[in-house]
Amino acid sequence: MSESCVFCRIARGEIPARLVHEDEQVVGFHDLDPQAPVHVLLIPRRHVATLLETGPGDVELLGRLQRAAVEVAGRLGLDRDGFRLVTNCLEGAGQSVFHLHVHLLGGRPLGWPPG
Amino acid sequence: MSESCVFCRIARGEIPARLVHEDEQVVGFHDLDPQAPVHVLLIPRRHVATLLETGPGDVELLGRLQRAAVEVAGRLGLDRDGFRLVTNCLEGAGQSVFHLHVHLLGGRPLGWPPG
Repeated sequence: MSESCVFCRIARGEIPARLVHEDEQVVGFHDLDPQAPVHVLLIPRRHVATLLETGPGDVELLGRLQRAAVEVAGRLGLDRDGFRLVTNCLEGAGQSVFHLHVHLLGGRPLGWPPG
Repeated sequence: MSESCVFCRIARGEIPARLVHEDEQVVGFHDLDPQAPVHVLLIPRRHVATLLETGPGDVELLGRLQRAAVEVAGRLGLDRDGFRLVTNCLEGAGQSVFHLHVHLLGGRPLGWPPG
């Protein structure tokens, strides 16, 4: 847990967000700068800065983030036309908040390459 | 397992591929149509068509795919400048092979939005 991390603060309810998912380990909310009609972020409640900070003991957490994204996708109607899950690691890949997060994007055609 | 699925055949060693990872559950190999200097695919050995076919019992498998991608990223030197993990679900999101796979991309700046 980090006092100043904006995603930790969202997970603790200290900063308002449009939540779409909450369980013991994962919180999901709409991105404030959406890149598609549906753009949700899934984050662990625990502060993990980047994918590179995860280890073999985080397999379950990483899987739960993916599964939460799939569940939200279904609930938001993306199970017909599809969706994309994206995780950026480090600034060179576009990571701007250093609290691990999975982007769920859908509701429009998604081009290739993915950035 | 599917007789005709190209990714099942790669996992079984029936089709050659430039492998970068192999464990009991996950195989990783270089994409034949790379979109970045490093473009690797991580697949489960078990045939799972899409993310939408996964359930709560697949949390470990989904986490192992992510962790394998991170391990490969480190081994290929992407732990300094970063990398992006992408999973497409259904054709509308760009999925072209219906065997679940995680794209690992790195080695160049990655733009936003991701497609």
